Amino acid sequence: MLCRSVRFGETDAAGVMHFQQLLRWCHEAYEESLERFGLEPAALFPTPGQPLDLLLPITHCSADFLAPLICGDPLAIALKPQLLDPTAFEVAYSFSSAGRPVARGLTRHQCIAAADRRRAPLPEGVQRWLQASAQS
Amino acid sequence: MLCRSVRFGETDAAGVMHFQQLLRWCHEAYEESLERFGLEPAALFPTPGQPLDLLLPITHCSADFLAPLICGDPLAIALKPQLLDPTAFEVAYSFSSAGRPVARGLTRHQCIAAADRRRAPLPEGVQRWLQASAQS
Amino acid sequence: MLCRSVRFGETDAAGVMHFQQLLRWCHEAYEESLERFGLEPAALFPTPGQPLDLLLPITHCSADFLAPLICGDPLAIALKPQLLDPTAFEVAYSFSSAGRPVARGLTRHQCIAAADRRRAPLPEGVQRWLQASAQS
Amino acid sequence: MLCRSVRFGETDAAGVMHFQQLLRWCHEAYEESLERFGLEPAALFPTPGQPLDLLLPITHCSADFLAPLICGDPLAIALKPQLLDPTAFEVAYSFSSAGRPVARGLTRHQCIAAADRRRAPLPEGVQRWLQASAQS
Repeated sequence: MLCRSVRFGETDAAGVMHFQQLLRWCHEAYEESLERFGLEPAALFPTPGQPLDLLLPITHCSADFLAPLICGDPLAIALKPQLLDPTAFEVAYSFSSAGRPVARGLTRHQCIAAADRRRAPLPEGVQRWLQASAQS
Repeated sequence: MLCRSVRFGETDAAGVMHFQQLLRWCHEAYEESLERFGLEPAALFPTPGQPLDLLLPITHCSADFLAPLICGDPLAIALKPQLLDPTAFEVAYSFSSAGRPVARGLTRHQCIAAADRRRAPLPEGVQRWLQASAQS
Repeated sequence: MLCRSVRFGETDAAGVMHFQQLLRWCHEAYEESLERFGLEPAALFPTPGQPLDLLLPITHCSADFLAPLICGDPLAIALKPQLLDPTAFEVAYSFSSAGRPVARGLTRHQCIAAADRRRAPLPEGVQRWLQASAQS
Repeated sequence: MLCRSVRFGETDAAGVMHFQQLLRWCHEAYEESLERFGLEPAALFPTPGQPLDLLLPITHCSADFLAPLICGDPLAIALKPQLLDPTAFEVAYSFSSAGRPVARGLTRHQCIAAADRRRAPLPEGVQRWLQASAQS
Protein backbone atom coordinates (compact mmCIF):
# COMPACT_ATOMS: atom_id res chain seq x y z
CA MET A 1 0.00 0.00 0.00
CA LEU A 2 1.53 3.27 -1.13
CA CYS A 3 0.41 6.79 -0.26
CA ARG A 4 0.39 10.25 -1.79
CA SER A 5 -1.71 13.41 -1.87
CA VAL A 6 -3.34 15.16 -4.80
CA ARG A 7 -1.24 18.25 -5.57
CA PHE A 8 -2.40 21.58 -6.97
CA GLY A 9 -0.54 21.21 -10.27
CA GLU A 10 -2.41 17.95 -10.84
CA THR A 11 -5.81 19.67 -10.88
CA ASP A 12 -7.37 21.47 -13.85
CA ALA A 13 -9.74 24.39 -14.17
CA ALA A 14 -12.70 22.14 -13.34
CA GLY A 15 -11.15 22.10 -9.87
CA VAL A 16 -10.42 18.36 -9.81
CA MET A 17 -7.52 16.03 -10.70
CA HIS A 18 -6.84 16.09 -14.44
CA PHE A 19 -7.36 12.52 -15.74
CA GLN A 20 -3.92 12.11 -17.26
CA GLN A 21 -2.13 12.43 -13.90
CA LEU A 22 -3.48 9.06 -12.76
CA LEU A 23 -1.30 7.19 -15.24
CA ARG A 24 1.75 9.00 -13.87
CA TRP A 25 0.78 7.96 -10.35
CA CYS A 26 0.43 4.35 -11.57
CA HIS A 27 3.94 4.27 -12.98
CA GLU A 28 5.42 5.92 -9.90
CA ALA A 29 3.66 3.35 -7.68
CA TYR A 30 5.04 0.57 -9.89
CA GLU A 31 8.58 1.94 -9.52
CA GLU A 32 8.16 2.34 -5.78
CA SER A 33 6.89 -1.23 -5.47
CA LEU A 34 9.92 -2.61 -7.33
CA GLU A 35 12.22 -0.52 -5.15
CA ARG A 36 10.61 -1.68 -1.91
CA PHE A 37 11.04 -5.27 -3.11
CA GLY A 38 14.75 -4.53 -3.30
CA LEU A 39 15.28 -4.12 -7.04
CA GLU A 40 17.70 -1.38 -8.08
CA PRO A 41 16.06 1.19 -10.43
CA ALA A 42 19.20 1.16 -12.64
CA ALA A 43 18.75 -2.59 -13.18
CA LEU A 44 15.34 -2.08 -14.79
CA PHE A 45 15.27 1.50 -16.09
CA PRO A 46 18.00 2.80 -18.42
CA THR A 47 20.49 5.28 -16.98
CA PRO A 48 23.35 7.05 -18.81
CA GLY A 49 26.32 4.81 -19.44
CA GLN A 50 24.47 1.74 -18.17
CA PRO A 51 22.66 0.30 -21.18
CA LEU A 52 20.26 -2.55 -20.42
CA ASP A 53 19.82 -5.75 -22.40
CA LEU A 54 16.11 -5.89 -21.63
CA LEU A 55 13.47 -3.15 -21.77
CA LEU A 56 9.91 -3.21 -20.41
CA PRO A 57 7.87 -0.81 -22.55
CA ILE A 58 4.17 -0.31 -21.84
CA THR A 59 1.98 -1.69 -24.63
CA HIS A 60 -1.39 -0.84 -23.10
CA CYS A 61 -2.81 1.24 -20.30
CA SER A 62 -6.25 2.16 -19.06
CA ALA A 63 -7.92 4.02 -16.22
CA ASP A 64 -11.37 4.35 -14.69
CA PHE A 65 -12.36 7.39 -12.69
CA LEU A 66 -14.97 6.75 -10.00
CA ALA A 67 -15.00 10.00 -8.03
CA PRO A 68 -13.58 13.51 -8.40
CA LEU A 69 -10.33 14.16 -6.54
CA ILE A 70 -9.45 17.59 -5.17
CA CYS A 71 -6.22 19.22 -4.07
CA GLY A 72 -5.04 17.75 -0.77
CA ASP A 73 -7.03 14.50 -1.03
CA PRO A 74 -5.01 11.66 0.50
CA LEU A 75 -4.65 8.59 -1.72
CA ALA A 76 -3.84 4.98 -0.91
CA ILE A 77 -2.66 2.89 -3.86
CA ALA A 78 -2.79 -0.91 -3.92
CA LEU A 79 -0.94 -2.75 -6.72
CA LYS A 80 -1.77 -6.20 -8.10
CA PRO A 81 0.91 -7.33 -10.59
CA GLN A 82 0.18 -10.44 -12.69
CA LEU A 83 2.27 -12.53 -15.08
CA LEU A 84 0.64 -12.76 -18.53
CA ASP A 85 3.19 -14.96 -20.27
CA PRO A 86 6.95 -15.50 -19.80
CA THR A 87 7.63 -12.20 -21.61
CA ALA A 88 4.85 -9.93 -20.31
CA PHE A 89 2.95 -8.83 -17.22
CA GLU A 90 0.35 -6.31 -16.18
CA VAL A 91 -0.22 -4.29 -13.04
CA ALA A 92 -3.68 -3.36 -11.75
CA TYR A 93 -3.84 -0.31 -9.47
CA SER A 94 -6.67 0.49 -7.02
CA PHE A 95 -6.84 4.03 -5.70
CA SER A 96 -8.83 4.82 -2.58
CA SER A 97 -9.26 7.97 -0.53
CA ALA A 98 -10.50 7.85 3.06
CA GLY A 99 -11.44 4.20 2.54
CA ARG A 100 -13.55 4.86 -0.56
CA PRO A 101 -12.52 3.57 -4.04
CA VAL A 102 -11.87 6.56 -6.31
CA ALA A 103 -10.05 5.23 -9.38
CA ARG A 104 -8.50 2.19 -11.05
CA GLY A 105 -5.54 1.93 -13.40
CA LEU A 106 -3.86 -0.75 -15.50
CA THR A 107 -0.49 -0.93 -17.25
CA ARG A 108 0.66 -3.83 -19.47
CA HIS A 109 4.40 -4.32 -19.97
CA GLN A 110 6.17 -6.29 -22.71
CA CYS A 111 9.75 -7.38 -22.20
CA ILE A 112 11.90 -6.87 -25.29
CA ALA A 113 15.59 -7.19 -26.09
CA ALA A 114 17.08 -3.69 -26.41
CA ALA A 115 19.17 -4.82 -29.39
CA ASP A 116 16.38 -5.89 -31.77
CA ARG A 117 13.18 -5.00 -29.83
CA ARG A 118 12.05 -8.67 -30.03
CA ARG A 119 10.07 -10.31 -27.22
CA ALA A 120 12.30 -11.73 -24.51
CA PRO A 121 11.83 -13.47 -21.12
CA LEU A 122 11.30 -11.11 -18.20
CA PRO A 123 14.32 -10.09 -16.11
CA GLU A 124 14.84 -12.48 -13.21
CA GLY A 125 14.20 -9.76 -10.60
CA VAL A 126 10.84 -8.92 -12.13
CA GLN A 127 9.92 -12.62 -12.15
CA ARG A 128 10.64 -12.80 -8.41
CA TRP A 129 8.63 -9.62 -7.78
CA LEU A 130 5.68 -11.11 -9.69
CA GLN A 131 5.88 -14.38 -7.72
CA ALA A 132 6.09 -12.56 -4.40
CA SER A 133 3.15 -10.34 -5.40
CA ALA A 134 1.04 -13.38 -6.34
CA GLN A 135 1.51 -14.83 -2.87
CA SER A 136 0.74 -11.71 -0.89
CA MET B 1 -6.51 15.23 -39.07
CA LEU B 2 -4.32 17.05 -36.58
CA CYS B 3 -0.54 17.18 -36.48
CA ARG B 4 2.25 17.50 -33.94
CA SER B 5 5.81 16.32 -33.32
CA VAL B 6 7.23 14.30 -30.48
CA ARG B 7 9.17 16.69 -28.24
CA PHE B 8 12.25 15.98 -26.13
CA GLY B 9 10.50 16.49 -22.80
CA GLU B 10 8.00 13.80 -23.82
CA THR B 11 10.68 11.11 -24.03
CA ASP B 12 12.12 9.14 -21.12
CA ALA B 13 15.50 7.59 -20.41
CA ALA B 14 14.63 4.60 -22.66
CA GLY B 15 14.91 7.18 -25.48
CA VAL B 16 11.27 6.96 -26.57
CA MET B 17 7.98 8.74 -25.84
CA HIS B 18 6.88 8.13 -22.24
CA PHE B 19 3.49 6.36 -22.39
CA GLN B 20 1.59 8.87 -20.27
CA GLN B 21 2.11 11.69 -22.80
CA LEU B 22 -0.22 10.03 -25.29
CA LEU B 23 -3.25 10.74 -23.13
CA ARG B 24 -2.30 14.41 -23.03
CA TRP B 25 -2.06 14.45 -26.82
CA CYS B 26 -5.52 12.84 -26.99
CA HIS B 27 -7.10 15.55 -24.87
CA GLU B 28 -5.34 18.33 -26.77
CA ALA B 29 -6.55 16.84 -30.07
CA TYR B 30 -10.09 16.69 -28.66
CA GLU B 31 -9.92 20.36 -27.66
CA GLU B 32 -8.51 21.32 -31.04
CA SER B 33 -11.26 19.41 -32.83
CA LEU B 34 -13.97 21.21 -30.85
CA GLU B 35 -12.30 24.54 -31.57
CA ARG B 36 -12.02 23.86 -35.31
CA PHE B 37 -15.72 22.97 -35.31
CA GLY B 38 -16.34 26.48 -33.98
CA LEU B 39 -17.06 25.82 -30.30
CA GLU B 40 -15.62 28.35 -27.86
CA PRO B 41 -13.31 26.70 -25.27
CA ALA B 42 -14.91 28.80 -22.52
CA ALA B 43 -18.31 27.32 -23.38
CA LEU B 44 -17.11 23.79 -22.57
CA PHE B 45 -14.15 24.17 -20.22
CA PRO B 46 -14.44 26.19 -16.98
CA THR B 47 -12.65 29.53 -16.86
CA PRO B 48 -12.43 31.97 -13.91
CA GLY B 49 -15.62 33.93 -13.36
CA GLN B 50 -17.49 31.90 -16.00
CA PRO B 51 -18.93 28.90 -14.17
CA LEU B 52 -20.55 26.28 -16.39
CA ASP B 53 -23.81 24.44 -15.76
CA LEU B 54 -22.51 21.29 -17.42
CA LEU B 55 -19.17 19.50 -17.02
CA LEU B 56 -17.71 16.69 -19.14
CA PRO B 57 -15.37 14.70 -16.89
CA ILE B 58 -13.52 11.70 -18.27
CA THR B 59 -14.73 8.44 -16.72
CA HIS B 60 -12.47 6.08 -18.66
CA CYS B 61 -9.41 6.22 -20.87
CA SER B 62 -7.12 3.73 -22.54
CA ALA B 63 -4.18 3.62 -24.90
CA ASP B 64 -2.35 1.05 -27.03
CA PHE B 65 1.24 1.56 -28.08
CA LEU B 66 2.16 -0.08 -31.38
CA ALA B 67 5.62 1.33 -32.10
CA PRO B 68 8.26 3.35 -30.24
CA LEU B 69 8.22 7.10 -30.93
CA ILE B 70 11.38 9.17 -30.82
CA CYS B 71 12.07 12.90 -30.49
CA GLY B 72 11.13 14.70 -33.70
CA ASP B 73 8.78 12.02 -35.03
CA PRO B 74 5.89 13.68 -36.87
CA LEU B 75 2.44 12.53 -35.79
CA ALA B 76 -0.93 12.65 -37.52
CA ILE B 77 -3.93 12.24 -35.24
CA ALA B 78 -7.37 11.17 -36.48
CA LEU B 79 -10.35 11.48 -34.12
CA LYS B 80 -13.54 9.44 -34.20
CA PRO B 81 -16.07 10.77 -31.67
CA GLN B 82 -19.17 8.66 -30.95
CA LEU B 83 -22.37 9.26 -28.97
CA LEU B 84 -22.87 6.57 -26.29
CA ASP B 85 -26.14 7.77 -24.82
CA PRO B 86 -27.78 11.22 -24.52
CA THR B 87 -25.43 12.03 -21.61
CA ALA B 88 -22.13 10.47 -22.71
CA PHE B 89 -19.74 10.05 -25.62
CA GLU B 90 -16.33 8.64 -26.37
CA VAL B 91 -13.52 9.67 -28.69
CA ALA B 92 -11.22 7.15 -30.40
CA TYR B 93 -7.83 8.52 -31.51
CA SER B 94 -5.57 6.95 -34.15
CA PHE B 95 -1.95 8.10 -34.21
CA SER B 96 0.18 7.52 -37.28
CA SER B 97 3.69 8.58 -38.21
CA ALA B 98 4.88 8.60 -41.81
CA GLY B 99 1.73 6.68 -42.78
CA ARG B 100 2.28 3.90 -40.26
CA PRO B 101 -0.09 3.36 -37.26
CA VAL B 102 1.87 3.93 -34.05
CA ALA B 103 -0.70 4.24 -31.25
CA ARG B 104 -4.39 4.36 -30.37
CA GLY B 105 -6.18 6.21 -27.60
CA LEU B 106 -9.69 6.39 -26.16
CA THR B 107 -11.41 8.82 -23.80
CA ARG B 108 -14.97 8.43 -22.47
CA HIS B 109 -16.79 11.55 -21.27
CA GLN B 110 -19.84 11.76 -19.00
CA CYS B 111 -21.90 14.93 -18.95
CA ILE B 112 -22.90 15.99 -15.45
CA ALA B 113 -24.60 19.01 -13.91
CA ALA B 114 -21.99 21.11 -12.09
CA ALA B 115 -24.43 21.76 -9.25
CA ASP B 116 -25.06 18.17 -8.12
CA ARG B 117 -22.72 16.11 -10.35
CA ARG B 118 -25.73 14.11 -11.68
CA ARG B 119 -25.88 12.86 -15.27
CA ALA B 120 -27.26 15.43 -17.67
CA PRO B 121 -27.88 15.71 -21.44
CA LEU B 122 -24.82 16.77 -23.45
CA PRO B 123 -24.40 20.48 -24.28
CA GLU B 124 -26.04 21.34 -27.58
CA GLY B 125 -22.69 22.28 -29.21
CA VAL B 126 -21.18 18.90 -28.36
CA GLN B 127 -24.25 17.18 -29.80
CA ARG B 128 -23.76 19.03 -33.10
CA TRP B 129 -20.04 18.17 -33.10
CA LEU B 130 -20.89 14.49 -32.58
CA GLN B 131 -23.44 14.54 -35.41
CA ALA B 132 -21.04 16.26 -37.79
CA SER B 133 -18.28 13.81 -36.85
CA ALA B 134 -20.58 10.84 -37.51
CA GLN B 135 -21.23 12.07 -41.06
CA SER B 136 -17.64 12.80 -41.99
CA MET C 1 13.32 18.55 4.99
CA LEU C 2 11.19 16.69 2.46
CA CYS C 3 12.12 13.61 0.46
CA ARG C 4 11.34 12.04 -2.88
CA SER C 5 13.01 9.93 -5.59
CA VAL C 6 13.56 10.73 -9.25
CA ARG C 7 11.02 8.71 -11.24
CA PHE C 8 11.40 7.26 -14.73
CA GLY C 9 8.74 9.49 -16.29
CA GLU C 10 10.71 12.52 -15.06
CA THR C 11 13.76 11.62 -17.15
CA ASP C 12 14.26 12.39 -20.84
CA ALA C 13 16.13 10.67 -23.66
CA ALA C 14 19.44 12.13 -22.39
CA GLY C 15 18.92 9.71 -19.50
CA VAL C 16 18.61 12.38 -16.80
CA MET C 17 15.85 14.39 -15.10
CA HIS C 18 14.17 16.76 -17.57
CA PHE C 19 14.68 20.30 -16.27
CA GLN C 20 11.03 21.27 -16.13
CA GLN C 21 10.21 18.62 -13.50
CA LEU C 22 12.17 20.53 -10.86
CA LEU C 23 9.59 23.32 -10.77
CA ARG C 24 6.86 20.75 -10.15
CA TRP C 25 8.87 19.33 -7.26
CA CYS C 26 9.26 22.85 -5.85
CA HIS C 27 5.52 23.46 -5.83
CA GLU C 28 4.77 20.06 -4.34
CA ALA C 29 7.34 20.69 -1.59
CA TYR C 30 5.71 24.07 -0.93
CA GLU C 31 2.28 22.44 -0.61
CA GLU C 32 3.66 19.72 1.65
CA SER C 33 5.35 22.31 3.87
CA LEU C 34 2.09 24.25 4.30
CA GLU C 35 0.26 21.01 5.08
CA ARG C 36 2.82 19.92 7.68
CA PHE C 37 2.47 23.33 9.30
CA GLY C 38 -1.23 22.52 9.72
CA LEU C 39 -2.80 24.62 6.97
CA GLU C 40 -5.68 22.99 5.09
CA PRO C 41 -5.02 22.79 1.32
CA ALA C 42 -8.63 23.91 0.66
CA ALA C 43 -7.96 27.13 2.62
CA LEU C 44 -5.18 28.16 0.21
CA PHE C 45 -5.87 26.35 -3.07
CA PRO C 46 -9.25 26.63 -4.81
CA THR C 47 -11.49 23.57 -4.75
CA PRO C 48 -14.92 23.14 -6.41
CA GLY C 49 -17.72 24.92 -4.56
CA GLN C 50 -15.25 26.58 -2.17
CA PRO C 51 -14.19 29.81 -3.84
CA LEU C 52 -11.39 31.68 -2.09
CA ASP C 53 -11.18 35.43 -1.48
CA LEU C 54 -7.40 35.41 -1.88
CA LEU C 55 -5.21 33.74 -4.50
CA LEU C 56 -1.42 33.28 -4.49
CA PRO C 57 -0.32 33.12 -8.13
CA ILE C 58 3.34 32.68 -8.98
CA THR C 59 4.82 35.76 -10.63
CA HIS C 60 8.38 34.48 -11.04
CA CYS C 61 10.29 31.23 -10.82
CA SER C 62 13.81 30.10 -11.51
CA ALA C 63 15.97 27.01 -11.20
CA ASP C 64 19.67 26.14 -11.29
CA PHE C 65 20.84 22.66 -12.16
CA LEU C 66 24.15 21.66 -10.56
CA ALA C 67 24.37 17.94 -11.32
CA PRO C 68 22.54 15.43 -13.51
CA LEU C 69 19.87 13.36 -11.72
CA ILE C 70 19.04 9.82 -12.78
CA CYS C 71 16.09 7.52 -12.19
CA GLY C 72 16.03 6.34 -8.59
CA ASP C 73 18.20 9.13 -7.19
CA PRO C 74 17.00 10.05 -3.69
CA LEU C 75 16.36 13.75 -3.12
CA ALA C 76 16.19 15.82 0.04
CA ILE C 77 14.47 19.19 -0.34
CA ALA C 78 14.98 22.09 2.08
CA LEU C 79 12.66 25.12 1.85
CA LYS C 80 13.43 28.67 2.92
CA PRO C 81 10.30 30.87 2.65
CA GLN C 82 10.74 34.62 3.01
CA LEU C 83 8.32 37.54 3.27
CA LEU C 84 8.95 40.15 0.56
CA ASP C 85 6.25 42.67 1.49
CA PRO C 86 2.85 42.36 3.21
CA THR C 87 1.37 41.01 -0.05
CA ALA C 88 4.14 38.77 -1.38
CA PHE C 89 6.69 36.11 -0.47
CA GLU C 90 9.20 33.83 -2.11
CA VAL C 91 10.38 30.32 -1.39
CA ALA C 92 13.96 29.14 -2.05
CA TYR C 93 14.41 25.40 -2.47
CA SER C 94 17.69 23.49 -2.07
CA PHE C 95 17.85 19.99 -3.53
CA SER C 96 20.53 17.56 -2.40
CA SER C 97 21.16 13.91 -3.16
CA ALA C 98 23.34 11.79 -0.92
CA GLY C 99 24.50 14.95 0.87
CA ARG C 100 25.58 16.71 -2.32
CA PRO C 101 23.78 19.85 -3.62
CA VAL C 102 22.22 19.04 -7.01
CA ALA C 103 19.77 21.86 -7.77
CA ARG C 104 18.17 25.06 -6.52
CA GLY C 105 14.70 26.47 -7.19
CA LEU C 106 12.80 29.67 -6.44
CA THR C 107 9.13 30.62 -6.61
CA ARG C 108 7.73 34.09 -5.95
CA HIS C 109 4.08 34.42 -4.95
CA GLN C 110 1.86 37.48 -5.10
CA CYS C 111 -1.32 37.58 -3.04
CA ILE C 112 -4.28 38.99 -4.94
CA ALA C 113 -7.98 39.35 -4.31
CA ALA C 114 -9.86 36.80 -6.42
CA ALA C 115 -12.57 39.37 -7.18
CA ASP C 116 -10.45 42.02 -8.92
CA ARG C 117 -6.95 40.44 -9.03
CA ARG C 118 -5.54 43.41 -7.07
CA ARG C 119 -2.69 43.02 -4.56
CA ALA C 120 -3.93 42.06 -1.12
CA PRO C 121 -2.38 41.20 2.28
CA LEU C 122 -1.31 37.57 2.63
CA PRO C 123 -3.74 35.11 4.27
CA GLU C 124 -3.20 34.93 8.02
CA GLY C 125 -2.15 31.25 7.88
CA VAL C 126 0.55 31.99 5.32
CA GLN C 127 1.81 34.87 7.50
CA ARG C 128 2.16 32.47 10.44
CA TRP C 129 3.94 29.90 8.25
CA LEU C 130 6.39 32.59 7.09
CA GLN C 131 7.07 33.71 10.65
CA ALA C 132 7.62 30.15 11.85
CA SER C 133 9.91 29.46 8.88
CA ALA C 134 11.97 32.58 9.63
CA GLN C 135 12.63 31.31 13.14
CA SER C 136 13.54 27.73 12.28
CA MET D 1 7.21 33.54 -34.19
CA LEU D 2 5.58 30.30 -33.03
CA CYS D 3 1.97 29.73 -32.01
CA ARG D 4 -0.02 27.54 -29.68
CA SER D 5 -3.14 27.64 -27.51
CA VAL D 6 -3.49 27.13 -23.78
CA ARG D 7 -4.98 23.66 -23.26
CA PHE D 8 -7.29 22.48 -20.47
CA GLY D 9 -4.74 20.10 -18.94
CA GLU D 10 -2.36 23.04 -18.57
CA THR D 11 -4.69 24.91 -16.22
CA ASP D 12 -5.05 24.31 -12.50
CA ALA D 13 -7.92 24.65 -10.04
CA ALA D 14 -7.39 28.43 -9.90
CA GLY D 15 -8.71 28.34 -13.48
CA VAL D 16 -5.51 29.61 -15.11
CA MET D 17 -2.35 28.16 -16.67
CA HIS D 18 -0.24 26.37 -14.05
CA PHE D 19 3.14 28.14 -13.92
CA GLN D 20 5.27 25.08 -14.61
CA GLN D 21 3.77 24.57 -18.09
CA LEU D 22 5.50 27.70 -19.38
CA LEU D 23 8.92 26.07 -19.17
CA ARG D 24 7.64 23.16 -21.25
CA TRP D 25 6.38 25.61 -23.86
CA CYS D 26 9.80 27.28 -23.89
CA HIS D 27 11.61 24.02 -24.61
CA GLU D 28 9.11 23.02 -27.28
CA ALA D 29 9.52 26.41 -28.96
CA TYR D 30 13.31 25.98 -28.82
CA GLU D 31 13.04 22.57 -30.51
CA GLU D 32 10.65 23.92 -33.13
CA SER D 33 12.99 26.81 -33.87
CA LEU D 34 15.95 24.46 -34.42
CA GLU D 35 13.79 22.27 -36.64
CA ARG D 36 12.58 25.19 -38.75
CA PHE D 37 16.20 26.25 -39.19
CA GLY D 38 16.80 22.84 -40.73
CA LEU D 39 18.56 21.00 -37.91
CA GLU D 40 17.58 17.35 -37.45
CA PRO D 41 16.25 16.63 -33.92
CA ALA D 42 18.32 13.41 -33.82
CA ALA D 43 21.48 15.46 -34.38
CA LEU D 44 20.92 17.43 -31.16
CA PHE D 45 18.70 15.28 -28.94
CA PRO D 46 19.67 11.69 -28.09
CA THR D 47 17.62 8.91 -29.72
CA PRO D 48 17.96 5.14 -29.18
CA GLY D 49 20.95 3.65 -30.97
CA GLN D 50 22.24 7.10 -31.99
CA PRO D 51 24.44 8.28 -29.14
CA LEU D 52 25.65 11.87 -29.42
CA ASP D 53 29.13 13.17 -28.66
CA LEU D 54 27.77 16.48 -27.39
CA LEU D 55 24.87 17.19 -25.03
CA LEU D 56 23.20 20.53 -24.25
CA PRO D 57 21.78 20.29 -20.73
CA ILE D 58 19.96 23.23 -19.21
CA THR D 59 21.88 24.79 -16.32
CA HIS D 60 19.45 27.58 -15.51
CA CYS D 61 15.89 28.59 -16.32
CA SER D 62 13.52 31.30 -15.21
CA ALA D 63 10.07 32.64 -15.97
CA ASP D 64 8.02 35.76 -15.30
CA PHE D 65 4.24 35.69 -15.37
CA LEU D 66 2.63 38.97 -16.36
CA ALA D 67 -1.01 38.02 -16.85
CA PRO D 68 -3.24 35.02 -16.14
CA LEU D 69 -3.80 32.69 -19.10
CA ILE D 70 -7.01 30.73 -19.52
CA CYS D 71 -7.98 27.67 -21.55
CA GLY D 72 -8.16 28.52 -25.23
CA ASP D 73 -5.99 31.65 -25.05
CA PRO D 74 -3.90 31.92 -28.23
CA LEU D 75 -0.19 32.44 -27.67
CA ALA D 76 2.54 33.85 -29.90
CA ILE D 77 6.08 32.98 -28.85
CA ALA D 78 9.15 34.94 -29.97
CA LEU D 79 12.62 33.48 -29.33
CA LYS D 80 15.85 35.38 -28.92
CA PRO D 81 18.83 33.00 -28.71
CA GLN D 82 22.20 34.43 -27.67
CA LEU D 83 25.73 33.02 -27.53
CA LEU D 84 27.23 33.33 -24.04
CA ASP D 85 30.65 31.81 -24.70
CA PRO D 86 31.91 29.21 -27.20
CA THR D 87 30.38 26.45 -25.05
CA ALA D 88 27.11 27.97 -23.89
CA PHE D 89 24.06 29.94 -25.00
CA GLU D 90 20.75 31.13 -23.66
CA VAL D 91 17.32 31.60 -25.18
CA ALA D 92 14.91 34.34 -24.12
CA TYR D 93 11.23 33.71 -24.86
CA SER D 94 8.50 36.36 -25.05
CA PHE D 95 4.91 35.18 -24.85
CA SER D 96 2.09 37.40 -26.04
CA SER D 97 -1.65 36.85 -26.41
CA ALA D 98 -3.77 39.06 -28.62
CA GLY D 99 -0.82 41.47 -28.91
CA ARG D 100 -0.34 41.82 -25.17
CA PRO D 101 2.79 40.52 -23.37
CA VAL D 102 1.75 37.77 -20.94
CA ALA D 103 4.95 35.97 -19.90
CA ARG D 104 8.69 35.69 -20.37
CA GLY D 105 10.97 32.68 -20.13
CA LEU D 106 14.70 31.96 -20.21
CA THR D 107 16.73 28.79 -20.63
CA ARG D 108 20.54 28.58 -20.43
CA HIS D 109 22.28 25.67 -22.12
CA GLN D 110 25.79 24.33 -21.50
CA CYS D 111 27.43 22.16 -24.14
CA ILE D 112 29.25 19.17 -22.63
CA ALA D 113 30.97 16.10 -24.02
CA ALA D 114 28.75 13.06 -23.40
CA ALA D 115 31.81 10.97 -22.52
CA ASP D 116 33.09 12.96 -19.53
CA ARG D 117 30.46 15.71 -19.10
CA ARG D 118 33.19 18.39 -19.54
CA ARG D 119 32.48 21.72 -21.26
CA ALA D 120 32.86 21.51 -25.01
CA PRO D 121 32.38 23.84 -28.02
CA LEU D 122 28.80 24.05 -29.29
CA PRO D 123 27.77 21.79 -32.19
CA GLU D 124 28.35 23.48 -35.53
CA GLY D 125 24.61 23.50 -36.38
CA VAL D 126 23.76 25.29 -33.14
CA GLN D 127 26.48 27.86 -33.86
CA ARG D 128 24.90 28.59 -37.25
CA TRP D 129 21.44 28.83 -35.67
CA LEU D 130 22.79 31.34 -33.11
CA GLN D 131 24.45 33.42 -35.84
CA ALA D 132 21.32 33.44 -37.98
CA SER D 133 19.19 34.37 -34.95
CA ALA D 134 21.51 37.26 -34.08
CA GLN D 135 21.01 38.74 -37.54
CA SER D 136 17.24 38.40 -37.70
